[in-house]
Amino acid sequence: MIARYSLQPIDHRQIKLTGGLLAQKQEINREKTLTAIFRQSYETGRIDAFKLEWTATSGKPRPHYFWDSDVYKLLEAAAYSLGTHADAEMEAELDRIIELICKAQQPDGYLNIYFTVVEPKKRWTNLRDWHELYCAGHLFEAAVAVFNATGKRKLLEAACRFADLIDATFGRETGKKRGYPGHEEIELALIKLYRCTGEKRYLRLAKYFIDERGQQPHYFDGEVQVHGIAPGWHYLNGHQSNQSHLPVRQQKEAVGHAVRAMYLYSGMADVAAELHDDQLLQACETIWDNLVTRRMYITGGIGSTHRSEGFTRDYDLPNRLAYAETCAAVGLIFWAHRMLQFDCDSRYADILETSLYNGALSGVGNDGQSFLYVNPLQSDGNHHRQKWFDCACCPSNISRLLASIGGYIYSIAPDLLAVHLFAASAGSCKVAGVPISFSVHTDYPWTGDIEFHLDAAPAAEWTLALRLPNWCHQACLTVNHESVEIAPLVRNGYVHLRRTWKTGDVLQWQLEMPVEQWQSHPQVENNTGRVALRRGPLVYCLEQADNGSQLHQIAIEPAAQWSVEKCTALPQIAVLAAEAWRETYPEWPDRLYQAAQPAKCSRVRIKAIPYYAWDNRAAGEMLVWIRRLLPPWREKNRSAAT
Amino acid sequence: MIARYSLQPIDHRQIKLTGGLLAQKQEINREKTLTAIFRQSYETGRIDAFKLEWTATSGKPRPHYFWDSDVYKLLEAAAYSLGTHADAEMEAELDRIIELICKAQQPDGYLNIYFTVVEPKKRWTNLRDWHELYCAGHLFEAAVAVFNATGKRKLLEAACRFADLIDATFGRETGKKRGYPGHEEIELALIKLYRCTGEKRYLRLAKYFIDERGQQPHYFDGEVQVHGIAPGWHYLNGHQSNQSHLPVRQQKEAVGHAVRAMYLYSGMADVAAELHDDQLLQACETIWDNLVTRRMYITGGIGSTHRSEGFTRDYDLPNRLAYAETCAAVGLIFWAHRMLQFDCDSRYADILETSLYNGALSGVGNDGQSFLYVNPLQSDGNHHRQKWFDCACCPSNISRLLASIGGYIYSIAPDLLAVHLFAASAGSCKVAGVPISFSVHTDYPWTGDIEFHLDAAPAAEWTLALRLPNWCHQACLTVNHESVEIAPLVRNGYVHLRRTWKTGDVLQWQLEMPVEQWQSHPQVENNTGRVALRRGPLVYCLEQADNGSQLHQIAIEPAAQWSVEKCTALPQIAVLAAEAWRETYPEWPDRLYQAAQPAKCSRVRIKAIPYYAWDNRAAGEMLVWIRRLLPPWREKNRSAAT
Repeated sequence: MIARYSLQPIDHRQIKLTGGLLAQKQEINREKTLTAIFRQSYETGRIDAFKLEWTATSGKPRPHYFWDSDVYKLLEAAAYSLGTHADAEMEAELDRIIELICKAQQPDGYLNIYFTVVEPKKRWTNLRDWHELYCAGHLFEAAVAVFNATGKRKLLEAACRFADLIDATFGRETGKKRGYPGHEEIELALIKLYRCTGEKRYLRLAKYFIDERGQQPHYFDGEVQVHGIAPGWHYLNGHQSNQSHLPVRQQKEAVGHAVRAMYLYSGMADVAAELHDDQLLQACETIWDNLVTRRMYITGGIGSTHRSEGFTRDYDLPNRLAYAETCAAVGLIFWAHRMLQFDCDSRYADILETSLYNGALSGVGNDGQSFLYVNPLQSDGNHHRQKWFDCACCPSNISRLLASIGGYIYSIAPDLLAVHLFAASAGSCKVAGVPISFSVHTDYPWTGDIEFHLDAAPAAEWTLALRLPNWCHQACLTVNHESVEIAPLVRNGYVHLRRTWKTGDVLQWQLEMPVEQWQSHPQVENNTGRVALRRGPLVYCLEQADNGSQLHQIAIEPAAQWSVEKCTALPQIAVLAAEAWRETYPEWPDRLYQAAQPAKCSRVRIKAIPYYAWDNRAAGEMLVWIRRLLPPWREKNRSAAT
Repeated sequence: MIARYSLQPIDHRQIKLTGGLLAQKQEINREKTLTAIFRQSYETGRIDAFKLEWTATSGKPRPHYFWDSDVYKLLEAAAYSLGTHADAEMEAELDRIIELICKAQQPDGYLNIYFTVVEPKKRWTNLRDWHELYCAGHLFEAAVAVFNATGKRKLLEAACRFADLIDATFGRETGKKRGYPGHEEIELALIKLYRCTGEKRYLRLAKYFIDERGQQPHYFDGEVQVHGIAPGWHYLNGHQSNQSHLPVRQQKEAVGHAVRAMYLYSGMADVAAELHDDQLLQACETIWDNLVTRRMYITGGIGSTHRSEGFTRDYDLPNRLAYAETCAAVGLIFWAHRMLQFDCDSRYADILETSLYNGALSGVGNDGQSFLYVNPLQSDGNHHRQKWFDCACCPSNISRLLASIGGYIYSIAPDLLAVHLFAASAGSCKVAGVPISFSVHTDYPWTGDIEFHLDAAPAAEWTLALRLPNWCHQACLTVNHESVEIAPLVRNGYVHLRRTWKTGDVLQWQLEMPVEQWQSHPQVENNTGRVALRRGPLVYCLEQADNGSQLHQIAIEPAAQWSVEKCTALPQIAVLAAEAWRETYPEWPDRLYQAAQPAKCSRVRIKAIPYYAWDNRAAGEMLVWIRRLLPPWREKNRSAAT
């Protein structure tokens, strides 16, 4: 790949979701989730904290050093929503909050509640563990989003003042601190600020933060000594926990805290693209390969352990103990989306889609007001959606993703329109120099039938690139009802249709979407002898509400016949049903261990629901990786003794 | 059961182990382990710490508040060893260390290194988290052991002085603290001190500590406030972590830190027996049932999570993440041994034997100088024996058990001799008023053939009670070569042979010991579709050294034919071998997930070694619960559709 974005996403403001799952989710996000997050942010004191009225004796909630970021991400989500759905009341609310924020900014541009009112002397003294630069990054993202949505510059100007202070504080120049954030975020945010303002210092600062990371002598080692912490020590996994164990260009594996990792890699991709930095892009590609071939759940969730909220080692993907934070899945979508713009390669879009429809979407309940922070692939019923979290990063993260999800569906190049995701939508853009408008009609992901209409398009020659998903083994394409042979047109997982397009052209894209039993790599020990159900982009799971408890007793046959059904309990969702077996031991006495007994095997009808929709009823067991009943393969597949 | 010990163990000093596994292990313990622990205790400064020379500027290792206990347990182990094998050099070393300890005792009787030299003002201020009373308990146990082995009273007198101070400090009387230890141990130790000295105040103090536990207002809540900790808060699982969530008589489940729990329950059994306290014994029985039917590994290991080093919930027994601390298995043996003395019920001896031969013995390597602290039932090769631990409780705990293991084999009552365990040994005791000596000839646990000889026994009528292990489905008994029908003689899992016994009587006890595939309770989710191999008291496991890596690829058939073989790599160990299948995917591409593929199934010969002997070679994978290849049970066991 060449280190420049050959594609540019069509901004979500140009895309109207017209129906189907993503439109529903965006609507719930707008109608319910944003309201819930605003309410929680007020009730917990996060917004009023910008009034800087806290003192030890004030009786007000003590601000946390990442509270700022929660509010900024809420502003960003709300601004994205305003970009597609004007809402004067919400805009007025944003104005009020922005007013508060700007008043909290210090004369020198510094802006962080905690280090202004709680520990003002500790500004910039523990970049590793505290989150000043992280919060700053979220301010920048919010500021750009608000400016794009409303044209109002107030927050953007505050962001630039703070960015200028940070630029004056950090860097390799004499007199500056050689620090960088323990929690990445500011890197990608500085790129957004640079693109919005044209200020190249922000791009250079992003590059500095990325390249300074992991250099020796190690900044964090020197820094933590002041706090009485031994160099190199970290309560988690040393410097790997924040990806500072090596300079980023030398890194080859996805390590440490998963959200931090995703934000870093996103920033690396952006800087690589802006500066045509092949080496930095190469590092991204190497880490990407490690991530998706060794360290990612089938849901697109990432982070195998609660302990570090992050990665462990290759093929270590425990299901019940998965962390798979909602924010990490969202972060993976951010990164995948960036990688996709380099070369329109579907291996990035496939992961983006998987993570979106499974590991990210699971983070918000059907009601839009209950959330999962941790997204395991198996639950014994102890894990349940919550209205809020003390560490409340996830709700606003999934909210800002859904509010802007239209921006992930299409990209353009000078003479190309790429379709990455499939969603009923209408959009407009300019391609081959002409303005076009188009619409997509589909009930995806419930069906694989997709129609693409050119509603208004002056005749011009350009390429329509349609993603052929990795889960699809059989696809049919017609253009204006004439069949098109796909195979010769496929490049990097996209069907490239070059022709003179014009108003009224209709393209039918039919993706066969059978129910499939997927296996994981043979080295993923805990999935041995188990399969996960997939249909199209959706991973399915069993829930106790449909199948009773003790889900591990259920085994499915390779030849199981699946039917796709409507679900009364969870409307608008297609569920899968099939005959399976349940293995029980009704005679088992009240003891833990005994010589193996014959099981009673009963035929049962099981029902699987999309993983993203789990835990929307009473808390109960859930299982993605289902035991697979092998046929008597000893007879069929016998090979020579070894 | 009636709350009094109807049996009394024959002290280990009366029993000589004459051959076989336990004798080997005891010899290695004497020759290697004790030496290693002495060396480590000197090298790490634990013993010299009693010189009280530490200051912040002394350059000496800073004592930890549980260091005392490490030294006391070493003394106890060494004293037990002296009880069966005189060793003038070792005795002289004990004398020197005891001299040091006694000099460290304060004028008022107080004795704890840490709270004398490091934080002298904090004596008795955090019973919950610090270990003063725990260390005191280990002092008492050591003192009694040293006195029994050598007749020397110096340490015993120091122990009594400290016990007197503790008795004057804690209790319900006005002016005393209503505290009790966060880490139990002193309760059972006070009973030993009471039995050794006849001082009833020690028995009453043990009862006080047991009954005060968990009373309201909660002592720990008041205590921790001084340290700025919120009442009820505990970094683990609240008051459950130290079994103080309820008064002990109301407790029904094994909860919290597993070692603490075992020591508490042992103390409860002792107090129940001494004071004929039926209610307290009932609590022991209820908790016991919960433990062994819900919360214990098949190895007799206990503690399902590293987080609390303890129990979680019913049927939660993860294998790779098991904590199963060596000390906890040893503690379970202590408790089981006490429960066994009430009524000679083999359900206690069965657990004692299982935990001894598996979960406890695994704690020390074949070399006697390398240890496991954590004893998982599955390893990916990251877990390996160590020479020592910063928190070094386990080496001396397994050492004191092995040094005194002869004391766990037999018990007597006025006219009964009970044989709980089977080991080549010679012993003497008094039964039915006459002194007898006897010997047992066996290569147990490698065979189930056991011969019991009455080497010298004046003719007298008494009962010989022979344990019929729960794993044995077929046993033969002859007395003086005449067959005896067992069934009518079995009570509580023991064959009760009442007759006039005399010198020269020979009893043959043949326990069939087939290799069996054991299953776990159907609610133990992670063992579904898996079996563990057992032969006699031994649980077996697969190791990478014998079977290659990726042990999860291996599946065994229910009808597998096992052979019991010698092992060249691990001499003196019987290994199990059989044909099995290995499922591989040689064509699997470098991706994590794809539609299910057919496996290549190869016939392989697998070898299993006793669990206790694992990790004595290069670190590698290990697996207890092996996948079981089901026969085509759909055809055979089909039942009506449900």
